[in-house]
Amino acid sequence: MLEELKQRVCDQNKSLLSHNLVLLTWGNASAIDRESGLVVIKPSGISYESMRPDDMVVVDLNGEVAEGNLRPSSDVMTHIELYKAFADIGGIVHTHSTFATAWAQAGRGIPIYGTTHADVFRENVPCTRALKKKEVENGYEVNTGKVIAEAFRKKNPLEIPAVLVKNHGVFAWGATPEEAISSAVTLEQIAKTAYLTETLLKGGEPVPDYLIKKHFTRKHGNDTTYGQD
Amino acid sequence: MLEELKQRVCDQNKSLLSHNLVLLTWGNASAIDRESGLVVIKPSGISYESMRPDDMVVVDLNGEVAEGNLRPSSDVMTHIELYKAFADIGGIVHTHSTFATAWAQAGRGIPIYGTTHADVFRENVPCTRALKKKEVENGYEVNTGKVIAEAFRKKNPLEIPAVLVKNHGVFAWGATPEEAISSAVTLEQIAKTAYLTETLLKGGEPVPDYLIKKHFTRKHGNDTTYGQD
Amino acid sequence: MLEELKQRVCDQNKSLLSHNLVLLTWGNASAIDRESGLVVIKPSGISYESMRPDDMVVVDLNGEVAEGNLRPSSDVMTHIELYKAFADIGGIVHTHSTFATAWAQAGRGIPIYGTTHADVFRENVPCTRALKKKEVENGYEVNTGKVIAEAFRKKNPLEIPAVLVKNHGVFAWGATPEEAISSAVTLEQIAKTAYLTETLLKGGEPVPDYLIKKHFTRKHGNDTTYGQD
Amino acid sequence: MLEELKQRVCDQNKSLLSHNLVLLTWGNASAIDRESGLVVIKPSGISYESMRPDDMVVVDLNGEVAEGNLRPSSDVMTHIELYKAFADIGGIVHTHSTFATAWAQAGRGIPIYGTTHADVFRENVPCTRALKKKEVENGYEVNTGKVIAEAFRKKNPLEIPAVLVKNHGVFAWGATPEEAISSAVTLEQIAKTAYLTETLLKGGEPVPDYLIKKHFTRKHGNDTTYGQD
Repeated sequence: MLEELKQRVCDQNKSLLSHNLVLLTWGNASAIDRESGLVVIKPSGISYESMRPDDMVVVDLNGEVAEGNLRPSSDVMTHIELYKAFADIGGIVHTHSTFATAWAQAGRGIPIYGTTHADVFRENVPCTRALKKKEVENGYEVNTGKVIAEAFRKKNPLEIPAVLVKNHGVFAWGATPEEAISSAVTLEQIAKTAYLTETLLKGGEPVPDYLIKKHFTRKHGNDTTYGQD
Repeated sequence: MLEELKQRVCDQNKSLLSHNLVLLTWGNASAIDRESGLVVIKPSGISYESMRPDDMVVVDLNGEVAEGNLRPSSDVMTHIELYKAFADIGGIVHTHSTFATAWAQAGRGIPIYGTTHADVFRENVPCTRALKKKEVENGYEVNTGKVIAEAFRKKNPLEIPAVLVKNHGVFAWGATPEEAISSAVTLEQIAKTAYLTETLLKGGEPVPDYLIKKHFTRKHGNDTTYGQD
Repeated sequence: MLEELKQRVCDQNKSLLSHNLVLLTWGNASAIDRESGLVVIKPSGISYESMRPDDMVVVDLNGEVAEGNLRPSSDVMTHIELYKAFADIGGIVHTHSTFATAWAQAGRGIPIYGTTHADVFRENVPCTRALKKKEVENGYEVNTGKVIAEAFRKKNPLEIPAVLVKNHGVFAWGATPEEAISSAVTLEQIAKTAYLTETLLKGGEPVPDYLIKKHFTRKHGNDTTYGQD
Repeated sequence: MLEELKQRVCDQNKSLLSHNLVLLTWGNASAIDRESGLVVIKPSGISYESMRPDDMVVVDLNGEVAEGNLRPSSDVMTHIELYKAFADIGGIVHTHSTFATAWAQAGRGIPIYGTTHADVFRENVPCTRALKKKEVENGYEVNTGKVIAEAFRKKNPLEIPAVLVKNHGVFAWGATPEEAISSAVTLEQIAKTAYLTETLLKGGEPVPDYLIKKHFTRKHGNDTTYGQD
């Protein structure tokens, strides 16, 4: 089932490696088929180089395996929690990409220092609060999803397509798995330039909102001037 | 029309990726045919990997499409504004390359800390002022070109073949599209070493003008000692 | 003898280069066959590109060559000392990988700033004390091994599969040579993100122990939730 | 003439690019045939990708072209000055490699923070003084060589096989052109880790001399324990 989606999810997982967002077997990408309520995700601990579409695991929204010979990624319950919380996303990516993870380990969200950020994110990239002891010891992956949803209570995930989880790493998403990868690539790049900017300016100088708005709406909404549509 | 120029512009666009100056579909390169007053530029949002010479878009100096099936890069009006302002340039490149963008996001021009910089840029690389709210909300791309021209009112663009746009990124140019790429590659490298130098020296120590002059004139002007001419 | 182990050790040595953990002919990887008490190690100074399984050198636990035409790596006595001190390890890797070496040169162990670290290391990555003058001048390589064992007197090497040697570099290990490589790749990555985190936070904020424990036990011990077992 | 040396010099020049020590057409490598007193060097401004052994230029110790269709590298007089000053070297490399150039632009030599440095350099890597105005305006390349020789008046170039030229970049050398490349690769790496170390330690802590001596003599002199000899 969902053979085409498995192919896409496999490709997206492999692109995590080619985009230098992951090392070894770290990270994972998934997609959801909203019609059937089934999620396709990377199998746990399998190498990206050897991964094939048939290795992908299909789970339902309770995390139960619907199809597949391998165990799903150990982060699957976080993905599921996000698909439930964000009704319009179709793909999710999880990484520990270098610069974004540095911000997450510092417990800091990423301020908007430039238009590259504003092109993709309408606001600062948020960083979640830390999980409490009992949230870690019971239902850790579900609670990781919940603490992200909590950070987005008043934010639109389609306008801020990624989050930093404090002391952990990145979850990024999009309407499709391909867009989720795009969000993750962009996040890592803006995390890197924001880091460098702060060093050059000892704190950085935020971008005014009218400039953020200009750049964001060029690529989002009804009046886009970017791309072919 | 302009088939040879389209081939060159397509090659230059693809080299933005191979030189690690861009990610995804960011950035763009163009060239102008002064005789016909036509500009050849990358199409908006098309992947570099799949791009072919026939995909290039030909526009006139009002930004009207003269030939091409795709929409031109959303930065085309900035390119046109620069071709009007700088009569001797033949190619332009726009990127958000990592280190140069960090300086642009810090609103800082790049001081001359070494001969690598002086080999290509006669002065510090300038950073434009910020655009005003109304300049962003109306005619943003044209005004981006104008604020660059403003920064060059008393400077020779052939001697300083790139600029940083505050909170945005890089525009680089040259007599040809190939030289524009060269300027952009050099800029990113000098942005990187200048960043590192400042950390090592907590502020950096500028290079004396007689040394700047020696290096610049080795490669520019009538008495060049570099290259085969 | 030990032809299969030579193949694996050769592969692991070559992967030091493909993982960007070494330059030129620096670094080395070995494995031990506990049954025979023989160690297979890279030959000294041979290029990684040209290395073949037949070039590997087999030594006994006194460092005497049991088989091989080439001299063993000059670090062989350190490897042997570690195989003696850590009875459950099967492979060792030595590198001067960039960020880990920076911490070693600073004489600092790496604090746990995030879950990526906790996934693989139960505690901070320790840095040894400096070797004394006479420890350097006599039996340097053996004493390098001893000073590492000293740092692990009250630590479990299977839970902290690498160490920084002050002013020197990295020794990493695992139950197999493949796992040793994995430890070294992880160490370099956490060294890099820890470096960046400290800059972002001017000192860093350690991760609470309950979060360290959760991540470590997901991949180690009896109740692992990661991987296919 | 000197066909074999031209092949080697061409290979060494191309390896500057594959080792990421240069960009575009920057940098150059040469070798000397002491018997004939002839130097083989890269032609000026030719791309590394297209370079072939026949393109190499042969010059005598006055800088006069003995054979070749192309102009020699514009740095040829500096190479010649160094061959005259350092009688035992056989190859020279010039780069603006990123981290080493940052130290040169800061006018700082590189302290010995670790054994990787001591493996190849017996002392700190020196940085020359700045050239005076008249030294730049007349005989710049010769004077660059002279200011390097001046920095080595009481140092052994075989024990310190590279130098930083203030505000400029790197000259590295060795008994052969291959060793000169090796020196340059090592220099860039130790420049990078020294930079990182200083950030981690706010100044760095030098390595004691007995440790420097141990590492240096493992690879140099009569009692080497590294390599196959």
